[in-house]
Amino acid sequence: MDERAMRQAIERKREGAALEPSLWETIVAAYMAGAVDDAQMAAMAMACVWRGLTIAEAAALTRAMVASGQTLQYPPNSVVVDKHSSGGVSDIVSLVVVPLVAACGVRVAKLSGRALGHTGGTIDKLETIAGFNAALPMDAFVAQVERIGCAIAAQSDAFVPADKRLYHLRDRTATVPSLGLIASSIVSKKIAGGAQHFVFDVKCGSAAFMRTRAEAVELAQALVDISREFGRGAKAIVSDMNEPLGRSIGTGIEVIEARDFLRGRMLDARVRELCLQVATAMLELACIGEPRALAASVLESGGAYEKFVELIEAQGGSKHALEALALPERVQPVNAQREGYVERIDAVALGNLAREWSGKAPTAGIRLSVRLGDRVERGQLLAECYSAHANGRQVQTAITIGDARPTPHPLVYATL
Amino acid sequence: MDERAMRQAIERKREGAALEPSLWETIVAAYMAGAVDDAQMAAMAMACVWRGLTIAEAAALTRAMVASGQTLQYPPNSVVVDKHSSGGVSDIVSLVVVPLVAACGVRVAKLSGRALGHTGGTIDKLETIAGFNAALPMDAFVAQVERIGCAIAAQSDAFVPADKRLYHLRDRTATVPSLGLIASSIVSKKIAGGAQHFVFDVKCGSAAFMRTRAEAVELAQALVDISREFGRGAKAIVSDMNEPLGRSIGTGIEVIEARDFLRGRMLDARVRELCLQVATAMLELACIGEPRALAASVLESGGAYEKFVELIEAQGGSKHALEALALPERVQPVNAQREGYVERIDAVALGNLAREWSGKAPTAGIRLSVRLGDRVERGQLLAECYSAHANGRQVQTAITIGDARPTPHPLVYATL
Repeated sequence: MDERAMRQAIERKREGAALEPSLWETIVAAYMAGAVDDAQMAAMAMACVWRGLTIAEAAALTRAMVASGQTLQYPPNSVVVDKHSSGGVSDIVSLVVVPLVAACGVRVAKLSGRALGHTGGTIDKLETIAGFNAALPMDAFVAQVERIGCAIAAQSDAFVPADKRLYHLRDRTATVPSLGLIASSIVSKKIAGGAQHFVFDVKCGSAAFMRTRAEAVELAQALVDISREFGRGAKAIVSDMNEPLGRSIGTGIEVIEARDFLRGRMLDARVRELCLQVATAMLELACIGEPRALAASVLESGGAYEKFVELIEAQGGSKHALEALALPERVQPVNAQREGYVERIDAVALGNLAREWSGKAPTAGIRLSVRLGDRVERGQLLAECYSAHANGRQVQTAITIGDARPTPHPLVYATL
Repeated sequence: MDERAMRQAIERKREGAALEPSLWETIVAAYMAGAVDDAQMAAMAMACVWRGLTIAEAAALTRAMVASGQTLQYPPNSVVVDKHSSGGVSDIVSLVVVPLVAACGVRVAKLSGRALGHTGGTIDKLETIAGFNAALPMDAFVAQVERIGCAIAAQSDAFVPADKRLYHLRDRTATVPSLGLIASSIVSKKIAGGAQHFVFDVKCGSAAFMRTRAEAVELAQALVDISREFGRGAKAIVSDMNEPLGRSIGTGIEVIEARDFLRGRMLDARVRELCLQVATAMLELACIGEPRALAASVLESGGAYEKFVELIEAQGGSKHALEALALPERVQPVNAQREGYVERIDAVALGNLAREWSGKAPTAGIRLSVRLGDRVERGQLLAECYSAHANGRQVQTAITIGDARPTPHPLVYATL
């Protein structure tokens, strides 16, 4: 493909055409080979934001991006499930369900990214455990999944280099918000990871990349449809992100909540329900009977916690290091200035604050004492700040108390 | 401006916002300084194609582009008019009206581009006259306008370098068709040229960049509005380009038609009418009374032809060289294969053919014997090919004879 052919392709997308799958493969290959440059690709990306991509186009783009790098292979008889979250605040689902599903006897190979914007990253969280190694070589990752049933590692740089380059370009050129490009980016990394089945947890709400239910459902459907084009089993759950999912916001502080949840000591109802739904979907894809009951019993029996410890030990950490994780001592309480209902919790603001504090002390962060819609009295505790650098006023500003009880958001908007 | 600020600007344009004039100036300056790269600019250009630019934005962009290079200055009491065509086939208007208006006593400074695609360029045409120098240094150009009242020269490379760079980028990235970007590009070059008044001849139809009347009127209005933001007097004429304007298509062959028109030997009615309308608009801007009658009389008296000769002599050519221009001897007639009405003349195809032939012999080309809507008998002459390389079949294919008399197109769709 030369410059002229790429110009014609951009022109067609600009006019709203769907490009042939083989053309997308040619474009990505030419981009990686240097025959198509960043300027042409940026114009194409903006045309995609404008005109959208069909599922066939997004699948072709996904295929082309996967082909740009290495892929993992599991033994043919090994059923391996992966799980993806579109990114939220206090999203500890991966930390819980990876060992939970593995403890149910289904292999989970979780390849994860870093924190992005106000949302946390599973890898950053686990690295607060002394000794934990998230940078597993990919053969060691596969071997660990086969041996103990689960692993959580950072994506290899050798995976989907085209996505890395394209994402960096899109980030610079304000061409991120194209549903087709987002879906291709997500699925390409899952396909390269080698699992047969994927569960996508698409967050929806004020602190999510998808603000509306309609957008989130559209992305979830695209993720499932594209995965199926590759013969993979896929399910998606569209879950609420109008407030933090769990009680804790930060890096290490979220590992503490996940650990205590798995030990049965901090059983937030929303965290429990979403984790069970995600785990159930993963088990269903692996054709496990009565999946929800199984997951619930493995959670209660402590089997999931044992598997979590096993995972951490397999990756260089220890039970001692996990259990030694503790909140910073300095607590600054945030109290309600008035009585009323919790009308709004600005999870973006809280996520940004907690990430800033976590940079200074790994387990620093915020622990919420209230949920959206809770009735509070004047002076009642809303949250605790665990950081020497905390400014309680900023947390207070992020929690709005009003007169009317707000309409509650469902935890799960849709399952696909 | 850094990469982050540019990303925010692209984001706002992507969401449909109008950017502040000062921001456009910052963007262009940063692009020329290398702080904003081609990829970000390409994404911005596609967002402009998508969302459009307001007149205030287009004017700001124009101002920023003008500021990137040199500009011409005329003495304060010198009233200078410039004229622009959006590009057509057999468009000999500039060759006629520049000397015509100058012969009426109004200075005309015509800076011109090269041929683009299937359309001809005034500079290329004039260079078929032996000795003619279109590459005047800009001080010599200004001096000639002051001395003899007119000059036609190629734009200096020192004019609007930002437009040159941006146009090249837009061409590669399929982001040309943005009305605001097109208008800024055109007006910036006119402003840099230093004239006080501009007449824009916006072509409209199957062989024009603007296919529909609505698009052409919108561009014409934008050109006039942006010019007025700079305190320049401006008028626009939206004229037909569903068939070649004149009878001759090529490079030197169009100079021959213009010469003979000015000598009163080849008075095509459409050419005459459009030239008089354009000249009238130019004279009106210079506040000349009874402009149309004056232009018509100067045309008939031969005064315009004398001025044309004077212009050519001033730029290194001679009356002899002009009058020596002759068609190639080899004529291949193209005759009607059937009786009927001339339903369609494919000016794009004819323009491309003639440009190809002109590359081999400067005065090679096509001379049409019919107009759209003419009644023809079987065997009647449709056109003559003046080229040793002519393939009459290709010309024949470009002229469609049908049963029904087509609805005639007006010559002028709108004047603004």
